Amino acid sequence: MQKSAILVLLLSSLCWPQKPPDFQPSATNVWGAEYPRVDDNGRVELRVKAPEAAKVKLNFWSGPKLDMEKQPDGFWTVTTPPLVPGFHYYTLNIDGAEVSDPSTEAYFGGGRPASAVEVPEPGSTYYLAQNVPHGQVREVWYNSKVTGSWRHALVYLPPTYDTQTTTRYPVLYLQHGAGEDETGWIRQAHANFILDNLIAANSCKPMIVVMAYGYARSAGQAPPDLTGKPFGSPEMLKAMQDMTAAFEDDVTQALIPFIDSTFRTLADRDHRAMAGLSMGGMQAFQVTLNHLDLFSYIGGFSGAGGMLVLGDRKLDPNTDYNGAFADPAAFAKKVHLLWMGVGTNEPERMRAGLHRLHTSLLEAKIQHVFYESPGTDHEWQTWRRDLKDFAPRLF
Amino acid sequence: MQKSAILVLLLSSLCWPQKPPDFQPSATNVWGAEYPRVDDNGRVELRVKAPEAAKVKLNFWSGPKLDMEKQPDGFWTVTTPPLVPGFHYYTLNIDGAEVSDPSTEAYFGGGRPASAVEVPEPGSTYYLAQNVPHGQVREVWYNSKVTGSWRHALVYLPPTYDTQTTTRYPVLYLQHGAGEDETGWIRQAHANFILDNLIAANSCKPMIVVMAYGYARSAGQAPPDLTGKPFGSPEMLKAMQDMTAAFEDDVTQALIPFIDSTFRTLADRDHRAMAGLSMGGMQAFQVTLNHLDLFSYIGGFSGAGGMLVLGDRKLDPNTDYNGAFADPAAFAKKVHLLWMGVGTNEPERMRAGLHRLHTSLLEAKIQHVFYESPGTDHEWQTWRRDLKDFAPRLF
Repeated sequence: MQKSAILVLLLSSLCWPQKPPDFQPSATNVWGAEYPRVDDNGRVELRVKAPEAAKVKLNFWSGPKLDMEKQPDGFWTVTTPPLVPGFHYYTLNIDGAEVSDPSTEAYFGGGRPASAVEVPEPGSTYYLAQNVPHGQVREVWYNSKVTGSWRHALVYLPPTYDTQTTTRYPVLYLQHGAGEDETGWIRQAHANFILDNLIAANSCKPMIVVMAYGYARSAGQAPPDLTGKPFGSPEMLKAMQDMTAAFEDDVTQALIPFIDSTFRTLADRDHRAMAGLSMGGMQAFQVTLNHLDLFSYIGGFSGAGGMLVLGDRKLDPNTDYNGAFADPAAFAKKVHLLWMGVGTNEPERMRAGLHRLHTSLLEAKIQHVFYESPGTDHEWQTWRRDLKDFAPRLF
Repeated sequence: MQKSAILVLLLSSLCWPQKPPDFQPSATNVWGAEYPRVDDNGRVELRVKAPEAAKVKLNFWSGPKLDMEKQPDGFWTVTTPPLVPGFHYYTLNIDGAEVSDPSTEAYFGGGRPASAVEVPEPGSTYYLAQNVPHGQVREVWYNSKVTGSWRHALVYLPPTYDTQTTTRYPVLYLQHGAGEDETGWIRQAHANFILDNLIAANSCKPMIVVMAYGYARSAGQAPPDLTGKPFGSPEMLKAMQDMTAAFEDDVTQALIPFIDSTFRTLADRDHRAMAGLSMGGMQAFQVTLNHLDLFSYIGGFSGAGGMLVLGDRKLDPNTDYNGAFADPAAFAKKVHLLWMGVGTNEPERMRAGLHRLHTSLLEAKIQHVFYESPGTDHEWQTWRRDLKDFAPRLF
């Protein structure tokens, strides 16, 4: 693109036509983009240029899939019914090509950079930047002997980290879901602002939050051959188990030593937590329950245990997870917090799995917290609320 | 998208069909994506699914624009002629919609998240992660009274920053180009690895690098009305001047005080540099030359002076930039480095502007460095080389 064209675009975007006052540009938009825009009822209006397309569809991943309508000026438009508050991924389907909307920032989800709109939750500021002390988010690279590669992670440090230079802090390892990456908790969820606000209100302890890349393959391991293997096939299950095992080794053998040698951590199990969402919750359960010498706080956000260990059956406290749940008194003594959450609008299979585990734990008399986020789906608003409930219970 | 679909996608992507050994997936690809791929000659092969599209075009912003060819399986493919080494932005045009390729990470350029391929430069490792100590990149948020908003910046800290806790460091302020944002120098250019490698080789001083968001509007200032105003019109020039002035105030009144109070900086003009690329180079010249009390090192990468101050005329050393260039001896005493660079394959207008300024400075007997990057265009490979030449001359 010509530099001059970019400048015209940028400067023109400083000015846009008068719009109905109830529709506002989404907080996810690139600088100056008027669309997508959201009204007070959560309706979203989209507009995209595709003058020669025959068909353009809007695909909210956990929301409506709508045909867009061609306008005489070559733009396609649509207005959705009201969406629930929160962060919603979407893609556009332009004549069969599933692509992002150039008007929003890119958020890594579904294994690709995707578009999203933010429908504000009325009265909720807990995940927004407030006028309180701000922590920093650091990008770090560590050389993992487990995977034989440089790996990238994000690390949130509380506002006092650089001024109270002798204080050591507890650490929460916080994982993204399948298809997302280590940037999701900051970009999509604003986990840093959630922590800033909780810490400023004295609602949670100042802590370090480590967000790692959840995919891994052991050094020298060949990629699995999954050609023609359906979802849930033994070969696919094996591939997932291998990936989770490599991730578990990476966390326990590479990441934790790197974090503890790089930051002023309280480097013991009493000051180390792990949680994750969806696939990340499943990983958090596996990593922590296999390493109770390293962790004492466990969180599963819309994902815990999961298909790798339990499939569709109930938990057997005596055998599953190496019998970690066999003795409720011993478990309560060792694990300071076992936390699970799910949104009331999540898909039935997801809700059933979490409820089954919850019931199993109740029957096994395992102390735990079970939280249901009212009206939210398998999406980031559920996980923001989870973090807001979970973090104050730590350390 | 269904979780199961995402998992199938991710796991399947662990395995791909045998490919000719000379074509390798681009380093910019999302995890497991086989396309785009690049061969040893710099040819790029693309593949995108758009089964119902009538026309799909590939648009390299500083490279070939090619029609893609529809295959029977609904994918469109194309192979480019050899591209020069480096990072190349591109978009796809699908039936008139200018969109990103879902197979690559998103890089903010052209005022939107864009796609890119990386053509490796044979034998060059200076911008890649090497087995040397790594600095960290921090994300910071500062509350700017100038713009009346929270602003986001990235800050590179040298590898020793956390271990040598009493050492103070000089600071380079490093700006992106028009259409890009504060993430460009890290994501696109790997400035952190360039610094890591230079520092490890003792080729440059350990320094802090601050990358700020280059757009600004003063608090309370109304957006300009540019409706119907052509590129280069007085109204547009005024809008750009206002934006640059607001940015100048933000850097000098909000950002620098924030950085100096947040990090262990050497907070004086002898230890403060500013450089930028294209629009960022123009900004660096304006900010530094208007504030020689704050800066003593100046860099313009494919942009310096520029249309805001000089337009198409030569520099008048006695009047331009408040006469900063009027006295060569005084200038040399005050400014430790004035550095300008341009690629030999950049557009003629860009090259002419830089050469005219270079000649003006020679005639005015102003000491400076003029560097030409062989064979590269108005793209990141030029600016990586610029940083590699510029950083060792600092402090």
